[in-house]
Amino acid sequence: MAEMKKNDAITAQEVDFAQWYTDVCRKAELMDYSSIKGFIIYRPYGYAIWEQIQHYLDHKFKETGHENVYMPMLISSSLFQKEKDHVEGFAPECAIVTKGGSNELEDELIIRPTSETLFCEHYAKIVSSYRDLPKKYNQWCSVVRWEKTTRPFLRGSEFLWQEGHTIHETEVEARKEVLDMLEIYNRMGRDLLAIPFATGQKTDKEKFAGAKDTFTIEALMPDGKALQSGTTHDFGTGFAEAFGIKFLGRDNALHPVHQTSWGVSTRLLGAIIMVHGDDNGLVLPPKVAPIQVVIIPIQMQKEGVLQKARELENNLKSLGLRVKLDDSDRSPGWKFSEYEMKGIPLRIELGPRDLTQNLVTIAKRNSGEKLQVSLDELSDKVTMLLETIHGEMYNKALQYLLDHTTDAHSYEEFKEILENKGGYVKMMWCGDQSCEDKIKQETNATSRCMPFNQEPIGDVCPICGKKATKVVLFAKAY
Amino acid sequence: MAEMKKNDAITAQEVDFAQWYTDVCRKAELMDYSSIKGFIIYRPYGYAIWEQIQHYLDHKFKETGHENVYMPMLISSSLFQKEKDHVEGFAPECAIVTKGGSNELEDELIIRPTSETLFCEHYAKIVSSYRDLPKKYNQWCSVVRWEKTTRPFLRGSEFLWQEGHTIHETEVEARKEVLDMLEIYNRMGRDLLAIPFATGQKTDKEKFAGAKDTFTIEALMPDGKALQSGTTHDFGTGFAEAFGIKFLGRDNALHPVHQTSWGVSTRLLGAIIMVHGDDNGLVLPPKVAPIQVVIIPIQMQKEGVLQKARELENNLKSLGLRVKLDDSDRSPGWKFSEYEMKGIPLRIELGPRDLTQNLVTIAKRNSGEKLQVSLDELSDKVTMLLETIHGEMYNKALQYLLDHTTDAHSYEEFKEILENKGGYVKMMWCGDQSCEDKIKQETNATSRCMPFNQEPIGDVCPICGKKATKVVLFAKAY
Repeated sequence: MAEMKKNDAITAQEVDFAQWYTDVCRKAELMDYSSIKGFIIYRPYGYAIWEQIQHYLDHKFKETGHENVYMPMLISSSLFQKEKDHVEGFAPECAIVTKGGSNELEDELIIRPTSETLFCEHYAKIVSSYRDLPKKYNQWCSVVRWEKTTRPFLRGSEFLWQEGHTIHETEVEARKEVLDMLEIYNRMGRDLLAIPFATGQKTDKEKFAGAKDTFTIEALMPDGKALQSGTTHDFGTGFAEAFGIKFLGRDNALHPVHQTSWGVSTRLLGAIIMVHGDDNGLVLPPKVAPIQVVIIPIQMQKEGVLQKARELENNLKSLGLRVKLDDSDRSPGWKFSEYEMKGIPLRIELGPRDLTQNLVTIAKRNSGEKLQVSLDELSDKVTMLLETIHGEMYNKALQYLLDHTTDAHSYEEFKEILENKGGYVKMMWCGDQSCEDKIKQETNATSRCMPFNQEPIGDVCPICGKKATKVVLFAKAY
Repeated sequence: MAEMKKNDAITAQEVDFAQWYTDVCRKAELMDYSSIKGFIIYRPYGYAIWEQIQHYLDHKFKETGHENVYMPMLISSSLFQKEKDHVEGFAPECAIVTKGGSNELEDELIIRPTSETLFCEHYAKIVSSYRDLPKKYNQWCSVVRWEKTTRPFLRGSEFLWQEGHTIHETEVEARKEVLDMLEIYNRMGRDLLAIPFATGQKTDKEKFAGAKDTFTIEALMPDGKALQSGTTHDFGTGFAEAFGIKFLGRDNALHPVHQTSWGVSTRLLGAIIMVHGDDNGLVLPPKVAPIQVVIIPIQMQKEGVLQKARELENNLKSLGLRVKLDDSDRSPGWKFSEYEMKGIPLRIELGPRDLTQNLVTIAKRNSGEKLQVSLDELSDKVTMLLETIHGEMYNKALQYLLDHTTDAHSYEEFKEILENKGGYVKMMWCGDQSCEDKIKQETNATSRCMPFNQEPIGDVCPICGKKATKVVLFAKAY
């Protein structure tokens, strides 16, 4: 493996992981701060990654029969208050509009923190028969939640996301929807982001405000903390009862619809940065990288170099790859460092000596490996390398996840693992919220999910000693 | 031409054009009202048209070197007030956030009515040398402007749009940018929406708050009123001076950047509805239609009908066409009427009798014509018909625009044309705002643009009798 040199522009991960994270966000030009706390600017390079995610998911959503819509940005307070649990969960985080067009408003308006209430109001108007079901809608937008502590992409007062909202005739269909969408998210991790997730159901304490059941994908960061990366919610008929979304069923009687919602956000950018990044900056998974290959000509002024570089650029672009040729007058050293910081998966170096040998040098960002490749087989090799890199990045992240998922059979062991190793701690649980509360209070760890694989590792809840009913993954979390 | 039967679900255009418009918006399921005035719901069918526009423009923007970003939804009031003309223009329309996270905010925040100030603040931070220029950014988002009178798509308190914001080293480059982007909008009309525009420069009275020069595309509606459909603004260095966006030039001295912005919005949906629609509902231009071809099987229960319909569906889809097969148990009559209302360009009818003759019937939504086409040549024919329909729709709209652009050589003539014929009235103008004011006050017409073709039709301004300096298109407008 080639030497990996530390980039001085950013703090080393070992020195201060949190500072490394913000350094990368800024130096890789993913974002910038605005003058309002918690409201960030998504710069072109950061937004382009989000566009790749949007493109992937939007296609999957449409393929599975979902349609995009756009609901208003503002919610009237009376509408917002219709579902009790929901308003309790979100009210403390709301941004509120009290003036419009130079006048005080009679009724305060809430900037959407999430749009369940808007979808409910609309669904109640347009659904009357089982023939109108299902409705499977999605919207891409930003939402506002007033946060005290904010970090780029991970927790912001405004963030970009998609929110799916569906209504169904039966409980079974709604449950299938939330599990199907969770699987779409899970596969996005595997196939697009090269990020493996722990998946499962949230406990009642951790579920969404207003949901009957919440399911989650949870990524694991290199500092041992979990990052909730997407959730799907089965609302049962709770919202439907509160908002009067009823339909005449096949039995000619009125029934409430069975409802779901699900979303992922720009928080996924935070996951990509942390899971894959290193002390030289960002390391982007090839499928989500806005630029997959950067071509850097060496001794550009020498005859044939730039011409060959442009030829390579065009050849690779014609394969559908995202390619950048940097023919600016910066030094090759500056360029190497810049595109390492930006995490571009493959760098192709091309100089006069290479030309005479009909060769180029390819450097893999994820491993630092360098290869010499004949120009004749460059196209095949680049395509193959991008696939290989994706696999290597996924496997590395998966190995870390597996290595940092540890069984605990006692509370002592639980605390010891959490303290010394971090990651997920798998433990039996009785099902009482008081045990979760105790764990959170004493260790700052929370239940991340009850994994789908519920093979027991014991009989009792190590916290209270009562009969255990569930296997739970606990972790400290973002 | 086939008989065109009036659909009773909507008001006839002749009876009440405004009511016809809202009827179509709702019956074609393009939108619905929310409980907050001026904030509409973009339903799947309406949003899908917007997605086609987004897809077309986003590609053109990227092809011409623009990058997407996302700026915060909220603007601090101090930032908003930095450019005097801009704040004067927009302040009366602002929605203001005064509470966040259960607390009163120290400083009020404004929901973006447009994002110039945010881009300026960011540009001031990231630009220092001519090497950093140009920056050509765009964002897709919604904006809020508190409107007293609102109409779906045409004027809303929230609407969806794109706003391009660019900065350049020279005045010439900035001017080229605003004219290039105007031409992209103009071609979008011709190539995508089948809508011809009058194009030209706005007078000072009608230009954007803070702009040096504004250029516009103006569509003409069948009721004789103009619809401003997109604008591009040359800011000169006004914002750059106010926000301190300076760069070290090639001459080693500090200079303010030359800046532009440009945008189109969901108002384009209003233009599509009005320019092309008829008493049976929407008539969609093929290139922007979410469904281009609907296949309606007749006597579905008869052997082979449904099977053949599915085969046609797959064949047409494999050509990249957007096709829907309606095999629901509704009657063919219901389906005809429904898809006419939704403006789907081509309807294919397929029954058992057609099958034995190896034929289908194709109906063109725009003209009502029906053709019998052999199944063997269906694919070619459908592709060709969609092209033909686009051409017919564009030409029809262009003919209307030409027929309703009339020269006036006196103020009497001007008023007479405006009253009896409507459309654009071309008249000479001295350049004084007082003459524009008088026209607006007395006739409710405004100057829509000073067309690029400035071939004079007289020497004096018919309003004041002074020397004329400009040819102007006046019209009543939305």
